[in-house]
Amino acid sequence: MSAIIRPSGRAAEALRPLTFTRRFTKHAEGSVLVAMGDTRVLCTASVLDKLPPHKKGSGEGWVTAEYGMLPRSTHTRTDREAARGKQSGRTQEIQRLIGRSLRAVVDLKKLGERTLHIDCDVLQADGGTRCASICGAYVAVADAIAGLMKDGALAESPLVDSIAAVSVGVYRGEPVLDLDYAEDSDCDTDMNVVMTGRGGIVEVQGTAEGAPFSRATLEALLDLATAGIEQITVRQNEALSA
Amino acid sequence: MSAIIRPSGRAAEALRPLTFTRRFTKHAEGSVLVAMGDTRVLCTASVLDKLPPHKKGSGEGWVTAEYGMLPRSTHTRTDREAARGKQSGRTQEIQRLIGRSLRAVVDLKKLGERTLHIDCDVLQADGGTRCASICGAYVAVADAIAGLMKDGALAESPLVDSIAAVSVGVYRGEPVLDLDYAEDSDCDTDMNVVMTGRGGIVEVQGTAEGAPFSRATLEALLDLATAGIEQITVRQNEALSA
Amino acid sequence: MSAIIRPSGRAAEALRPLTFTRRFTKHAEGSVLVAMGDTRVLCTASVLDKLPPHKKGSGEGWVTAEYGMLPRSTHTRTDREAARGKQSGRTQEIQRLIGRSLRAVVDLKKLGERTLHIDCDVLQADGGTRCASICGAYVAVADAIAGLMKDGALAESPLVDSIAAVSVGVYRGEPVLDLDYAEDSDCDTDMNVVMTGRGGIVEVQGTAEGAPFSRATLEALLDLATAGIEQITVRQNEALSA
Amino acid sequence: MSAIIRPSGRAAEALRPLTFTRRFTKHAEGSVLVAMGDTRVLCTASVLDKLPPHKKGSGEGWVTAEYGMLPRSTHTRTDREAARGKQSGRTQEIQRLIGRSLRAVVDLKKLGERTLHIDCDVLQADGGTRCASICGAYVAVADAIAGLMKDGALAESPLVDSIAAVSVGVYRGEPVLDLDYAEDSDCDTDMNVVMTGRGGIVEVQGTAEGAPFSRATLEALLDLATAGIEQITVRQNEALSA
Amino acid sequence: MSAIIRPSGRAAEALRPLTFTRRFTKHAEGSVLVAMGDTRVLCTASVLDKLPPHKKGSGEGWVTAEYGMLPRSTHTRTDREAARGKQSGRTQEIQRLIGRSLRAVVDLKKLGERTLHIDCDVLQADGGTRCASICGAYVAVADAIAGLMKDGALAESPLVDSIAAVSVGVYRGEPVLDLDYAEDSDCDTDMNVVMTGRGGIVEVQGTAEGAPFSRATLEALLDLATAGIEQITVRQNEALSA
Amino acid sequence: MSAIIRPSGRAAEALRPLTFTRRFTKHAEGSVLVAMGDTRVLCTASVLDKLPPHKKGSGEGWVTAEYGMLPRSTHTRTDREAARGKQSGRTQEIQRLIGRSLRAVVDLKKLGERTLHIDCDVLQADGGTRCASICGAYVAVADAIAGLMKDGALAESPLVDSIAAVSVGVYRGEPVLDLDYAEDSDCDTDMNVVMTGRGGIVEVQGTAEGAPFSRATLEALLDLATAGIEQITVRQNEALSA
Repeated sequence: MSAIIRPSGRAAEALRPLTFTRRFTKHAEGSVLVAMGDTRVLCTASVLDKLPPHKKGSGEGWVTAEYGMLPRSTHTRTDREAARGKQSGRTQEIQRLIGRSLRAVVDLKKLGERTLHIDCDVLQADGGTRCASICGAYVAVADAIAGLMKDGALAESPLVDSIAAVSVGVYRGEPVLDLDYAEDSDCDTDMNVVMTGRGGIVEVQGTAEGAPFSRATLEALLDLATAGIEQITVRQNEALSA
Repeated sequence: MSAIIRPSGRAAEALRPLTFTRRFTKHAEGSVLVAMGDTRVLCTASVLDKLPPHKKGSGEGWVTAEYGMLPRSTHTRTDREAARGKQSGRTQEIQRLIGRSLRAVVDLKKLGERTLHIDCDVLQADGGTRCASICGAYVAVADAIAGLMKDGALAESPLVDSIAAVSVGVYRGEPVLDLDYAEDSDCDTDMNVVMTGRGGIVEVQGTAEGAPFSRATLEALLDLATAGIEQITVRQNEALSA
Repeated sequence: MSAIIRPSGRAAEALRPLTFTRRFTKHAEGSVLVAMGDTRVLCTASVLDKLPPHKKGSGEGWVTAEYGMLPRSTHTRTDREAARGKQSGRTQEIQRLIGRSLRAVVDLKKLGERTLHIDCDVLQADGGTRCASICGAYVAVADAIAGLMKDGALAESPLVDSIAAVSVGVYRGEPVLDLDYAEDSDCDTDMNVVMTGRGGIVEVQGTAEGAPFSRATLEALLDLATAGIEQITVRQNEALSA
Repeated sequence: MSAIIRPSGRAAEALRPLTFTRRFTKHAEGSVLVAMGDTRVLCTASVLDKLPPHKKGSGEGWVTAEYGMLPRSTHTRTDREAARGKQSGRTQEIQRLIGRSLRAVVDLKKLGERTLHIDCDVLQADGGTRCASICGAYVAVADAIAGLMKDGALAESPLVDSIAAVSVGVYRGEPVLDLDYAEDSDCDTDMNVVMTGRGGIVEVQGTAEGAPFSRATLEALLDLATAGIEQITVRQNEALSA
Repeated sequence: MSAIIRPSGRAAEALRPLTFTRRFTKHAEGSVLVAMGDTRVLCTASVLDKLPPHKKGSGEGWVTAEYGMLPRSTHTRTDREAARGKQSGRTQEIQRLIGRSLRAVVDLKKLGERTLHIDCDVLQADGGTRCASICGAYVAVADAIAGLMKDGALAESPLVDSIAAVSVGVYRGEPVLDLDYAEDSDCDTDMNVVMTGRGGIVEVQGTAEGAPFSRATLEALLDLATAGIEQITVRQNEALSA
Repeated sequence: MSAIIRPSGRAAEALRPLTFTRRFTKHAEGSVLVAMGDTRVLCTASVLDKLPPHKKGSGEGWVTAEYGMLPRSTHTRTDREAARGKQSGRTQEIQRLIGRSLRAVVDLKKLGERTLHIDCDVLQADGGTRCASICGAYVAVADAIAGLMKDGALAESPLVDSIAAVSVGVYRGEPVLDLDYAEDSDCDTDMNVVMTGRGGIVEVQGTAEGAPFSRATLEALLDLATAGIEQITVRQNEALSA
């Protein structure tokens, strides 16, 4: 592609190194440490025998998510939300997005009357924490569901597809894939794309940080994201078959 | 276009009736009641002689927004957020979106050390309240800025463009513009698009409510939205020149 | 009466123009915009199929109220209570008063096991918002009850009387009726009186803002209020028979 | 007066035994245990070298009050407000009333740039706690001010009059003075009257608990209250000169 | 013992004057004002016909405690926790300690499905409020249980022992018993010891305020505390047999 | 020692495997993952250029700590404190203990006007999380201070000693060292001991979970703890010299 040099030296269309460490902690039904470059998120999936009020008696299950950053996961210390007494608007936005994304690939009828409660806690942040959370949460959910099937609690998997997310943006005039913190804090346009393994779009969130962007830029970013998601899907499948 | 009949009988590419009532209340520097079909939002723009901490001493101003729904703006009564003691995640998401959208067309340096505080309060909800809020907020902000210029507080307008938003979605398999509540609660894909009067994209938020959607659908929805925003921009300009 | 000139030019015993716009919004069972001079309050009455804990299984219904001011209903912007995370003492005092006032004219046994939830939201404030809220809430409640009777949910009306409220005060030494903001912020004594259409007193709240007041002043204020309530009652009945 | 027998056997116009124990605790500048029958309230007045924001730099002082009930001051245990995380609407209404009442007799200019912070904590409740609080708070404030004068911090007393409060109500059809809990929970009309030692009215709060009441009843209640306040004023003066 | 002179003139091993005033307030099933020197705490024990979720259906009862300080129980006024909207860490630590201590001497099976809810409210603080609370709470609980037995609600007492607490510390190099505020705010080591009447240890909480302390110091403090608890136990028994 | 077999098969006086992984995350000035058996806590020490109000202008620094458990660090999922909107009493107790413990070995004058803010976040819990937090926090603090000295911000180390903590308890009648979750949830007496590397006692917190314990048991537990702390101190020093 172009001649720009990203802070990391990566090509515009290159992902950061991506690894999934399964069974990172021992209590959760699914527990995955996802590393996307220097971003590290611990994603757990808990199987709970309870339902939110709007699902009680429906015969269906539920998938929900919570998100948090450890106070010193960031360059400078961020206030602890538990100490401040409330979650920020950003936190709520992200955990709603994670929940919606995972629900897109879980058949709630087949899940039965139980909740998959996902927790994504950022141990180290270097950009793209919401995307890393979705990627890791999928692996944790797959492990939790595999456990339910192994235990005979589920006869058939409620997973209808895989799900992954990646950020794309315009950095110094060039569309680039998988922004790290240095790029994220200095980019013109920032877009998060959530897609299934089969290529269906689940969520597109594009924001002009500086000047508005054109339709052509949007198309270029979507092309980059689609190619990125394909690579992530391969890694998720490799991790799950390891 | 197609043969489907929308609940409202509108064509797929038709906006709902759209009006802006300026000076709806008397105290705010800008006060606009926007009606998008049966959705009614009171948008006020207040000029405040204070700044948030991160802008103090910067020589720049700030634009921020808050959003709320009156408890019985909805079909069934919604709990009052002030009584519950906190704003929902949805509310925070929407007010952050409104703020970002308006900041995209205000030059904060030219605004000077003051805050434009936008309040969007939904009196009656029938789908598309966040989009109506952005459309109305622009008119209220334009009035507030005109007042500052008339008073001599500003020599040059900090407005660099107009801004508007519209929802698009896939209703019974067809892409349609400007969803009302009946469509919104029964659609497969829902997308909110925020664009400037000159056609720059400021925000795209698309969500698969049911099945994931294809790139082709995304393109069709963006086409519809672009045409819709153009019409809304005309109405905003008409309202402001009335 | 006397020679003083009120800021509005009104006679001491004159009400401000008073109008009730029924069906102002479409979802609530009763929805009334009351205008008392420049004060504008949207009063809705919602019929809810639920009861507070202390009424469950009692065979009786309940009437309750909530009150709020839009942030820019006031001369200078007031913080949004939902954003601050709690209702002020003033708000709680007012909504408790509205609830008590309406319960005085509703036979809870005849209402049956349902709640009438009143919401009074001030769109524009120019003094007397709590009195306007009570006046408008009565019309909204009457509409909601008429709806229940029309639907056959109630055979007999639980309304035993009408209810209205007005403020009186001592402005520059003279007792005056129905204070607007200019008077309210510059008066010695302020009293809110709530009475039924048949003239029964439901609530009297008189406060010396500056110097204590005499029994004679109290009597003069009560006379003014009684005459004012009679006029308001006529307007309420006219509005309901329109 | 009439033949009814009050639960306590008191005459309709009789106060309950009333005592003020000064210097009940040792740290506060004024500390008074007031006993009105079985109601016991500890009232302290603290002299603070700080001012609320709206008084800073005004050259004036401020008087404010807080109120609380110990959880088992009541017949059945009441939740602790500190544990619930907020003060009830009733608590806020009462503490606002106490503050307004005391401000009516303190010349804030003469007080100088300091705050008198009153705390009224109910140790045992048997009706009339807000009135007992006001009566006791006056004695505590008088002690705190006497201390300031003795220390030379004030040359002239900012107290312009004394202040007291009493409840009156209609019990089984008869107007009675100073309701205890048995009467309060079974009365038709309940009124709290706050007056100065010289007989000026500072606050009148009358509420129809059941049926609305007539102007004649209001007059009878005010007569009873006026006579009651006179007696309380005598006791306050006796206590302060002891 | 040694030659040091404590601010109070007490010997190192001397308790402050200790009294228990039973039936201090009339509504609670047990109500005791404990005075430990100038520290005064009102301890009530309420018998409630309800259980926390984790005890429902267990056939057992529960004992819990809450603690608070009146704002002006302290030298300078402390913020009211109800007004601040939350209990401090210190308050929570203390009320958890009081609850654990009392549970150590109540057989929850014999108590039956009811809660003993203890409230300890500090009227005047002069050091050692948590220890005084435990000592007084025991007497209040004993009274509440005696009432249940007298009423026939309990056939057998669930009390298995008495419980008391005392503070010890190193003041100017000497171990001393029952620290008052002057000592507490100027001591090197502070330890609270909770023991039963028969001498069993229930809780030991020792903290180095300044320099770390040695095992020998710990032993000396435990000796002092043991002797102090013995004396307190005698006073508790005397109070209960009065 | 005795013949009992601990669930882990450890000898009564044996610690669990203990490791410190320094520089576990990259942003914090000190970042240590401590593993005490299966308990894993991420301890970070942040150097902040700010002070709490009570230290401003004192010429001294401050050391404070916050503690949290990831929701699924536990056997069954624990509610997220940030979502519930407040920290539990247990959390506050623990973070106050961590802060006090570290302050015991830091000379605040030598630290200068800065804050060391410690965050201890439990990734996986298997008993003893507060002790592990203190042990790990010491290593993180030592690293942060070493960084300040290397950067020339400090000429002399404010560390006056090392600090460590360990739990001891009576399991099935035998005093044992370093309880894991299986023992902790089934023990009679539980004690946490915090000591410096030179053997000074900083904190002793012993609680009878079931029956009260004797002085002899207390002595045996202190002996075990002292020996355990000595071993932990060796490991801390080894980790820091690696």
